[in-house]
Amino acid sequence: MNKIYNPAQNTWSEILKRPTKTVDDIESTVKEIFKEVQKKGDEAILKYTSIFDGTALATFEVTTAEISEAQALVSEELKSAIQLAKSNIEKFHAVQKTSKIEIETTEGVNCWQEKRPIQKIGLYIPGGTAPLFSTVLMLAVPANIAGCNEIVLCSPPDKNGKINPAILYAANLCGVTKILKIGGIQAIAGMTFGTESIPKVYKIFGPGNQFVTVAKQLATQFGVAIDMPAGPSELLIVADNTAVPAFIASDLLSQAEHGTDSQVILVSTSKELIDEVEKEIELQLDVLPRKAIAEKATANSKLIFVENDKIALELIDEYGPEHFIICTKDEDFYVNNIGNAGSVFIGNYTPESAGDYASGTNHTLPTNGYAKNYSGVNLDSFTKSMTFQKISEKGIKNIGKAIEIMAEAEGLQAHKNAVTLRLESLK
Amino acid sequence: MNKIYNPAQNTWSEILKRPTKTVDDIESTVKEIFKEVQKKGDEAILKYTSIFDGTALATFEVTTAEISEAQALVSEELKSAIQLAKSNIEKFHAVQKTSKIEIETTEGVNCWQEKRPIQKIGLYIPGGTAPLFSTVLMLAVPANIAGCNEIVLCSPPDKNGKINPAILYAANLCGVTKILKIGGIQAIAGMTFGTESIPKVYKIFGPGNQFVTVAKQLATQFGVAIDMPAGPSELLIVADNTAVPAFIASDLLSQAEHGTDSQVILVSTSKELIDEVEKEIELQLDVLPRKAIAEKATANSKLIFVENDKIALELIDEYGPEHFIICTKDEDFYVNNIGNAGSVFIGNYTPESAGDYASGTNHTLPTNGYAKNYSGVNLDSFTKSMTFQKISEKGIKNIGKAIEIMAEAEGLQAHKNAVTLRLESLK
Repeated sequence: MNKIYNPAQNTWSEILKRPTKTVDDIESTVKEIFKEVQKKGDEAILKYTSIFDGTALATFEVTTAEISEAQALVSEELKSAIQLAKSNIEKFHAVQKTSKIEIETTEGVNCWQEKRPIQKIGLYIPGGTAPLFSTVLMLAVPANIAGCNEIVLCSPPDKNGKINPAILYAANLCGVTKILKIGGIQAIAGMTFGTESIPKVYKIFGPGNQFVTVAKQLATQFGVAIDMPAGPSELLIVADNTAVPAFIASDLLSQAEHGTDSQVILVSTSKELIDEVEKEIELQLDVLPRKAIAEKATANSKLIFVENDKIALELIDEYGPEHFIICTKDEDFYVNNIGNAGSVFIGNYTPESAGDYASGTNHTLPTNGYAKNYSGVNLDSFTKSMTFQKISEKGIKNIGKAIEIMAEAEGLQAHKNAVTLRLESLK
Repeated sequence: MNKIYNPAQNTWSEILKRPTKTVDDIESTVKEIFKEVQKKGDEAILKYTSIFDGTALATFEVTTAEISEAQALVSEELKSAIQLAKSNIEKFHAVQKTSKIEIETTEGVNCWQEKRPIQKIGLYIPGGTAPLFSTVLMLAVPANIAGCNEIVLCSPPDKNGKINPAILYAANLCGVTKILKIGGIQAIAGMTFGTESIPKVYKIFGPGNQFVTVAKQLATQFGVAIDMPAGPSELLIVADNTAVPAFIASDLLSQAEHGTDSQVILVSTSKELIDEVEKEIELQLDVLPRKAIAEKATANSKLIFVENDKIALELIDEYGPEHFIICTKDEDFYVNNIGNAGSVFIGNYTPESAGDYASGTNHTLPTNGYAKNYSGVNLDSFTKSMTFQKISEKGIKNIGKAIEIMAEAEGLQAHKNAVTLRLESLK
């Protein structure tokens, strides 16, 4: 761990730099697969599934029989846990519903805003060692509340042509309308263009490796929206001597185990705490199954001492952490003033894991400084806001003249004329 | 105008195709200018302003003296019109404010969502023949309501190194914090990287030509967000024999005058109306100053007859128009059921021009079918949603077990451990 004391403000951006990766080299692969899927449809999907996942599938869609089989394989204990999480995620996202917002801006001019669901969405769930069924909950639950009528889920099959049972269980529980055993670039390309088996969708959500990330970026060039740009996960904790060093260490490590490029940062006004957390990390690291990964990630990480809360806040706001844990005496200072963070965890009994799984908040959050300009996934991510207006004869008389003058000043005579004709008909 | 009767559903996508343009050839120019601005800052800005705008500027920032001068040049009539528009835009966007949304998802688990402003935003306002001061209102007014603390506006100078007075008047009126005489690719690059004169921003808004559009796309690769992907403006009207042909024609033409690539479509259940609108277009076209542009745009446009409202709605939803005017007897059918549209205008006295200027709704809207997956600019475009959670000892006891089970099932032991340590401390 790197300990840094009282860094000068002009060194912050260097200290807070994220581990970067270049993606130029994989762009050409992604483009090629997109072209082939666009042209050949399922034939290309079959080919790349065979190459990348090592399995030859006759059909991609998961059957009702497979779902039943999966349901039997998931332990009752895990089912209950998933149901609790689902219930909390539902509650938190359901209260985000907004009703029609309406106002008469001028007498006779009625304007309103309504949110309507994005009709067709695609969810990407990675396969591999960690089956992210929790991400299924985080995406499918709000999609359902929003009222999206087509929810397609793609996840890569294993060597035996199967998807992890917990993923299937969660997908079925949360109302996914079609589950497809397709992964990687070919899944994203398929949902972008549509194939015989894969419906074309309007927006794609979900995490993935570098290939999936680049594929999602490319998808946006073909009219598909995506949830947000992706990057390695990150956690910043601000803590003082009211914090419990063992808890802080466990939170830092829970982030560090995600990947060797994960970033964890502790900012503290207490040098003692920094030293104690460092010791705790050593102790806890030893017993972790993913020790190798976590160790590498902690090597990139930083323990930063600053003089006071005000400096700490400024530094944190410049960083814009995805996850931000506050364990300080004056927690309100940070809660009220933080400008840039994805999700904020407050107090000694609020580990990041809670938000990752079961408290109800969404875990799909902006990384890489995108907390400055992007929201985490929320109910609105599955809707679009539309505006409506209805103007009466009285209304057009009230604002018509202003429109004519402005249209004329912008040199748009036909815009003016659309109002003039109406005003004249009312004379 | 192309008249099409009862098109078969499998021909819709061909009929509704937007005029497309390829941008490959200008990408390299855009990339080059980005590189140079990143490396050389103001020196590059100066160079390209001289090349593209034909003016050599000593400084880019508009001074207080220039703003006063501009204020004197704008007629009182136009000032009043702008003030009325501003007041309506303010009212409509102010009611979009949402308060903190809070819920206790499980006893002891408090979660809430708050929207906080994007701190630094950039507005791009094109120059040229049509000075889009109305767009200044549409972007700066909600930015101010959202609480963005840095609002930078870039607009190209004319040959005399000036920005149109109405743009300066509107920018000053709406609380823009810095106005810069910089246009085109170099302006977008400058706001992306920051230079000596241009602040780096987190999100860029506003329309522009093809070069600006490609530049905004490129900006997203450097961590900047943009309002939405841009395309030529478009209008679809659904009308039956309760509509006034002259009004419909004037609305179609107001869209057509935007550019030769604008698209206007009329869908109707009345062949008579279609014929009458066609005649009206001929008549009105003749007297328009932008006749040449409007004529070319109408040549690409379509008058489509369909048997009934149900078919009309399906076709419109597949198109997803930016602007959608409803002039039919049963307007509620369309209002309640339209799934994909940017902004909807209802009834004979609600021309699109009203929303373009003064009714209060925003005129920055998704084109090119993006109404299927993007919102028009609204108050939320200037904020990001952040989540917060605070869990009590009781709360972690209530959900801790579920988190442990799920983390274990995903193979993330350190995530589990962060909860286990806390649960054990409470035994």
